Amino acid sequence: MEKRDKIKIGLIGLGTVGSGVFKTLQSFENVEVTKIAVRNINKPRNIDGLDNSIVTDNPYEVVNDSEIDIVAELIGGVEPAYDLIKTAIKNGKHIVTANKELLAKHGEELFNFAEEHNKVILYEAAIAGGIPIIMPIKTILAGNKINKIEAILNGTTNYILTKMDVQGASYETVLKEAQELGYAEADPTGDVEGFDAAYKITTLATITFGKRIKLENVYREGITKIRAQDMDAANDLGYKIKLIASAQLNENGQADVRVHPMLVSKKATLAHIDYVTNAVSLTGHPVGSVTLSGPGAGEFPTASSVVGDILAIAAELGKSDYILPMMRCKHDDNAEMINISDTTNKYYISITAKNNKGVIGKIGTICANNDISLESIVQRCVSQDNTADITVITEQVKEKNMQNAIKQIELDGNKVNSLIRVQV
Amino acid sequence: MEKRDKIKIGLIGLGTVGSGVFKTLQSFENVEVTKIAVRNINKPRNIDGLDNSIVTDNPYEVVNDSEIDIVAELIGGVEPAYDLIKTAIKNGKHIVTANKELLAKHGEELFNFAEEHNKVILYEAAIAGGIPIIMPIKTILAGNKINKIEAILNGTTNYILTKMDVQGASYETVLKEAQELGYAEADPTGDVEGFDAAYKITTLATITFGKRIKLENVYREGITKIRAQDMDAANDLGYKIKLIASAQLNENGQADVRVHPMLVSKKATLAHIDYVTNAVSLTGHPVGSVTLSGPGAGEFPTASSVVGDILAIAAELGKSDYILPMMRCKHDDNAEMINISDTTNKYYISITAKNNKGVIGKIGTICANNDISLESIVQRCVSQDNTADITVITEQVKEKNMQNAIKQIELDGNKVNSLIRVQV
Repeated sequence: MEKRDKIKIGLIGLGTVGSGVFKTLQSFENVEVTKIAVRNINKPRNIDGLDNSIVTDNPYEVVNDSEIDIVAELIGGVEPAYDLIKTAIKNGKHIVTANKELLAKHGEELFNFAEEHNKVILYEAAIAGGIPIIMPIKTILAGNKINKIEAILNGTTNYILTKMDVQGASYETVLKEAQELGYAEADPTGDVEGFDAAYKITTLATITFGKRIKLENVYREGITKIRAQDMDAANDLGYKIKLIASAQLNENGQADVRVHPMLVSKKATLAHIDYVTNAVSLTGHPVGSVTLSGPGAGEFPTASSVVGDILAIAAELGKSDYILPMMRCKHDDNAEMINISDTTNKYYISITAKNNKGVIGKIGTICANNDISLESIVQRCVSQDNTADITVITEQVKEKNMQNAIKQIELDGNKVNSLIRVQV
Repeated sequence: MEKRDKIKIGLIGLGTVGSGVFKTLQSFENVEVTKIAVRNINKPRNIDGLDNSIVTDNPYEVVNDSEIDIVAELIGGVEPAYDLIKTAIKNGKHIVTANKELLAKHGEELFNFAEEHNKVILYEAAIAGGIPIIMPIKTILAGNKINKIEAILNGTTNYILTKMDVQGASYETVLKEAQELGYAEADPTGDVEGFDAAYKITTLATITFGKRIKLENVYREGITKIRAQDMDAANDLGYKIKLIASAQLNENGQADVRVHPMLVSKKATLAHIDYVTNAVSLTGHPVGSVTLSGPGAGEFPTASSVVGDILAIAAELGKSDYILPMMRCKHDDNAEMINISDTTNKYYISITAKNNKGVIGKIGTICANNDISLESIVQRCVSQDNTADITVITEQVKEKNMQNAIKQIELDGNKVNSLIRVQV
């Protein structure tokens, strides 16, 4: 094999992740960062080894640079990332990206476009930060049919839920604290309403199942309604509440992909993944279940994955046939999806009953009429105003029936505080 | 790229793992098992799709078969596996193996031999069964300098320790139960004395640090002395007792590789890895810490890793330059090792003092004289025979000093029941 020159890397973005990538690449002799696009070229940067002459505020100078082999897009968001990546591919560059939103919304088109141009897009950093997940699925787990993913993919919400659990505090109190510490943004919607996790599970499920999942078919529910009381009740029942991104293929090949809070058994590894740590559990044949956990975000963990992808492409570039099958992301078939209302789940329900007299019987009857079997129903306490707190755990029942029952329980004058699905 | 024929696989061994591999490979169209060596050719086998005409009781028919591209060695032990692998390499075959003992004892020679012949030996299944660990270290984590591994690599001992913890039972009781259930062998030495875990950490540390670790330099201590009382005391202190295989590189590049029981904080993921599950935690820069967990043994989990390795080689075989850098296992440098007596550790010590009067003062003085600072010292109860149970947790102190102190405490007429290192 001929000895080739250093492989040339262009970076788009020199924020938290970009700086981590730049610093990490410094210690590798086969690659060299030759151009970096930043938003504000006048911002003072204190980065060892950074030659200011390679910094530009025009990202097209990176994607149009004929010397560059690999472009790492680290700015996030749909535009201008979308156009920059397409231009870079058109110009013959391979892509490494940490952009979960772009992949969830335009992955299909971008992967097809890359394939047409015989280029690859790698994106380990876009899903679960520093945790090795995409590469293992494409390589060492390639002998498996994985039919179930359960994952904690958002550090902000996991931090909030952990703090609520540890401190017994309300969502609002902990959110404020997380915002002050920089763990949650001023507008936390993207995290707390589950958008971020939905982007990630869309792409993760696509690559795992080998069928394209569309973001608009992913059911999404955030954590804003979780109460301190739900945390307590879950603990008593042997569970922790986590925001779980899940994807499941049933025996007919239909996909059920969602993000919502879930009561996770304390016996499961995911129940012990706390604060900003992320984790992905995969279940399939022949491997059984494996769980990969670690830092889901941050300068250096994310840089680990970006650099891993860059080095993987770099290792292939000297070869004559350099496209590894593991690097392909093109999936022509769309997955047939199951609507949440057609799924079967186990539920935790917290109800404040208007009147404690005979209320358990009435709730029991409503459930029975809707074909809902109960695992347990407990009346916890009766307040001075004659209301009663009731906690119900169902067997596995139809979502549609559950939603009907909830309506009827509320029509009967009771307040349904929480309806949270339970891990089975 | 020319379309090539199916890649031909030879299996040596059709026991638990071999059957799992054969069954799993059935669903892949680019590979074909063309010869299988078994010990007893007359043993009835109920395996779908198995053509008896490809089965032989002479393993050299597999390694000498000129049609075969990849040999999977699944018999374990040093001989005849060693000679079979060398013969196969000499005959131009790539190797996939699950043989941890062989790699720990002869890895250096075998990897060098493979490199000379431009062949690869892959061994994902040899370490932590179905958990993806070797491939991620070689690929997506390649941008990291990993300087610490803490792992649960033996399912039998983890099962025994979990059962002792859950049931409050003695080691002997649980071992017997584990033997009856088939989780422990009739002669359990290889597992309970830590040999199996030592084989695995030897190879795992070698690949992770990029320096060859020699098995004879790995400190090893089993679980046979762990008592139900130690489990209780650990629980009270916020720990679980696990058999931990660890490897650490210090700032001078010296390696400290060991297998011994350890008190692991309940806040750590490893404390929640129970029964036969295995787990590997890696710490390094830039990634921070990641933990990979899953089934460490068994027909199908092990098959997942063997098949993953076979498919990785198969994907490369059609190419003109087909040796992936990630597949290399040759490390010329031997690691400089630290002897256990020169290490610094935190300790849990359980002592039965002959006489409770002033004994805490005396133990405290012995520790102080040996430069051992104590985090806590608790006298738990005084028996009718005037003996006292004392539990000590030290700060981080020198192993050498600790061993001296233990001798002096015993010379003073006390009984040291347990000395177990504590995770820091």
